[in-house]
Amino acid sequence: MNAPNIAETLHAMGLQARQAAAVMAKSSTAARNQALRRLAALLRESVQALDVDNTRDLARAEAAGLAAPMVDRLRLGAKVIATVAEGCEQLAAMPDIIGDIVGMQQQPSGIRVGRMRVPIGVFGMIYESRPNVTIEAASLSIKSGNACILRGGSEAIDSNKALARLVQQALQDSGLPPEAVQLVQTTDREAVGQLIAMPQYVDVVIPRGGKSLIERISREAKVPVIKHLDGNCHSYVDDPCDLDMALRVVDNAKTQKVSPCNASESLLVARGVAADFLPRIGEVFAAKGVEMRCDAEAAALLRNVQGARVVAATEQDWYEEYLALVISIKVVGGLDEAIAHINHYGSHHTDAILTRDHVHAQRFLREVDSASVMVNASTRFADGFEYGLGAEIGISTDKFHARGPVGIEGLTSLKWIVLGQGEVRG
Amino acid sequence: MNAPNIAETLHAMGLQARQAAAVMAKSSTAARNQALRRLAALLRESVQALDVDNTRDLARAEAAGLAAPMVDRLRLGAKVIATVAEGCEQLAAMPDIIGDIVGMQQQPSGIRVGRMRVPIGVFGMIYESRPNVTIEAASLSIKSGNACILRGGSEAIDSNKALARLVQQALQDSGLPPEAVQLVQTTDREAVGQLIAMPQYVDVVIPRGGKSLIERISREAKVPVIKHLDGNCHSYVDDPCDLDMALRVVDNAKTQKVSPCNASESLLVARGVAADFLPRIGEVFAAKGVEMRCDAEAAALLRNVQGARVVAATEQDWYEEYLALVISIKVVGGLDEAIAHINHYGSHHTDAILTRDHVHAQRFLREVDSASVMVNASTRFADGFEYGLGAEIGISTDKFHARGPVGIEGLTSLKWIVLGQGEVRG
Repeated sequence: MNAPNIAETLHAMGLQARQAAAVMAKSSTAARNQALRRLAALLRESVQALDVDNTRDLARAEAAGLAAPMVDRLRLGAKVIATVAEGCEQLAAMPDIIGDIVGMQQQPSGIRVGRMRVPIGVFGMIYESRPNVTIEAASLSIKSGNACILRGGSEAIDSNKALARLVQQALQDSGLPPEAVQLVQTTDREAVGQLIAMPQYVDVVIPRGGKSLIERISREAKVPVIKHLDGNCHSYVDDPCDLDMALRVVDNAKTQKVSPCNASESLLVARGVAADFLPRIGEVFAAKGVEMRCDAEAAALLRNVQGARVVAATEQDWYEEYLALVISIKVVGGLDEAIAHINHYGSHHTDAILTRDHVHAQRFLREVDSASVMVNASTRFADGFEYGLGAEIGISTDKFHARGPVGIEGLTSLKWIVLGQGEVRG
Repeated sequence: MNAPNIAETLHAMGLQARQAAAVMAKSSTAARNQALRRLAALLRESVQALDVDNTRDLARAEAAGLAAPMVDRLRLGAKVIATVAEGCEQLAAMPDIIGDIVGMQQQPSGIRVGRMRVPIGVFGMIYESRPNVTIEAASLSIKSGNACILRGGSEAIDSNKALARLVQQALQDSGLPPEAVQLVQTTDREAVGQLIAMPQYVDVVIPRGGKSLIERISREAKVPVIKHLDGNCHSYVDDPCDLDMALRVVDNAKTQKVSPCNASESLLVARGVAADFLPRIGEVFAAKGVEMRCDAEAAALLRNVQGARVVAATEQDWYEEYLALVISIKVVGGLDEAIAHINHYGSHHTDAILTRDHVHAQRFLREVDSASVMVNASTRFADGFEYGLGAEIGISTDKFHARGPVGIEGLTSLKWIVLGQGEVRG
């Protein structure tokens, strides 16, 4: 397929998506929930059929010499399918927010003014490897009354095509337009360039993947982007603080899982509790093989910890998202220095204070300029499921439109509605 | 001043704005309201001094041969100053939404999760001619705890500089950083290019002005833009309908003022009422000198109206925003055709149905994809003041982030807050 054909194909998909979006926007809650339940049933019926397509992707990945963990992410086993099917049913059971009317108020002129929640229209989703994202994105799109164009990774193309066929069948079986969820069938990179440059058809683009993909899309997109860049998350141990609690939470924030974006990458400790706290957390980290990149003061307090891997931190370390068994550690004078450090070096993703002081807790919540700010909890909680959103289409590190974990609400907009009785402007 | 200096100047302003934004974000409600009241007082005290600066702008405009209505828009008389001063006091009296916490809910893990409203940070505002916009933007910025960089039109530069000095004095007198509101002092166009390309300092750009300005900024901006393009607004007279009411409302929507974006540019009439309604509205329009660009069916019904200026509409007319004593008129089969026409030809700004039918009203509200949808009211009501927002920084024709009239809320974001008691992720 050559470039002009890709442009034509994407334009045709865009036009169909726009038309399908109008139908989805006025569809009934019952039809959309039915499509989700039907999709769950089709997924469960198709475990064996999906395995055939998935095996082709896996074989190709192995032949290409992909590392074992990468191959694993492609795998669509019965367990993965059961999980996404359950996710569809959970979404079907959630309340429908489309059509909600908020803030209806009488104005001095006599008109009543409020806002109605409506689908945003058409979104484009660009993602890598894991094929279950195809179902997650499709199900959120159906629930929120949108249409979407999905562009998955080339490694998962056979699995994604098979899954997209099930989604379209579920839509059709429920009386909804199958074009409401379309998968880009080519793996040509040109398709991404087209998808992000059709403002007449696509209202927002959501990239999920590595930083370089997201930066490229943000730079080139002609439509708004819900983007997720780094998660350089901090845990700050304040003075006064319940150090047993802090020990448990900081350990969890760093080591429960190191690859997610909400894992803590940096530990700040108030000087007043540093001599008590640092040797204790140092022992925990030493036992788990966590490398500690420390300022001089923290390094001095960790010097005598048996087996601790203590390294001098460079200026760059304070900016770093390691996604590994590494943490930067700094002793700070107190709350003011902690907030200033986080706002300067952090990535505005998720930051937590561990404290006993109510005023400090309130100031941290107010003044730390991040999508999620937490008191006495592990940064690992920054997640759509843990926040009660039901599902998550992505995590936004922007302030515009959607911030932090993005669920159904991020795929909607509020339009103004005005109810009058023949009022005119004077 | 040459280009490299402009870049340096703008970067320095951006850095100062970013620092001032952090101070504004944690400032007290009382200090921000005090600054607004102080600004109102300074404006009233300065009527004569402002006149000196304003006269320079007016003289320059006249010497340059600007048309009288354009010169008029530059004028900062005592009445204009009284109005903006009153606007500042009204804002001061409004509730502070910064720090509001919404939707706090206990999650199964034990954490409580909600969202806190916070300032968006720094916004850039680019506008033309009328210098009172300087005060409107500055006062909204102060109320919402943001910092802003203002770039007014070159015609009003002397007036704008004088107004910006008053704003900075009001901030300083209230213990707030004067750099929270900065005016670009040069009229060089290069400054706009810089202002919209500093994502590290500016979170969103709001252009107010002609379509070509807004299109240029949207194309070149490296930050989100709250943009306001056309207002091709429709009034649809449904069947059944109280035609006396429709006559009053359609007349108002078209003729009360023709230059605002919320004036109706197109009239759709259901076939069932067209023979009754069109001759009556035709008489009103004929008396007021409104040119009617009609499809064949409407033209036939208007043929016998004394003095009516009836012209055959072209396809282009259905897209047109006239901002003049001109209206396009079409007879449609009914609600479905009206909705399809509006969604196809309209600009998604503001559209109204005049109807007696409840089901039609509900469908129109749900299915017309516009920032404001109205039942039995004049489209001229689409306005921040009429909607009870207190003030308006602009009107957005986008669906992303803010839609329709944008008040203080559009200058804020919601961040997630999590309150725990030492919970960890399992």
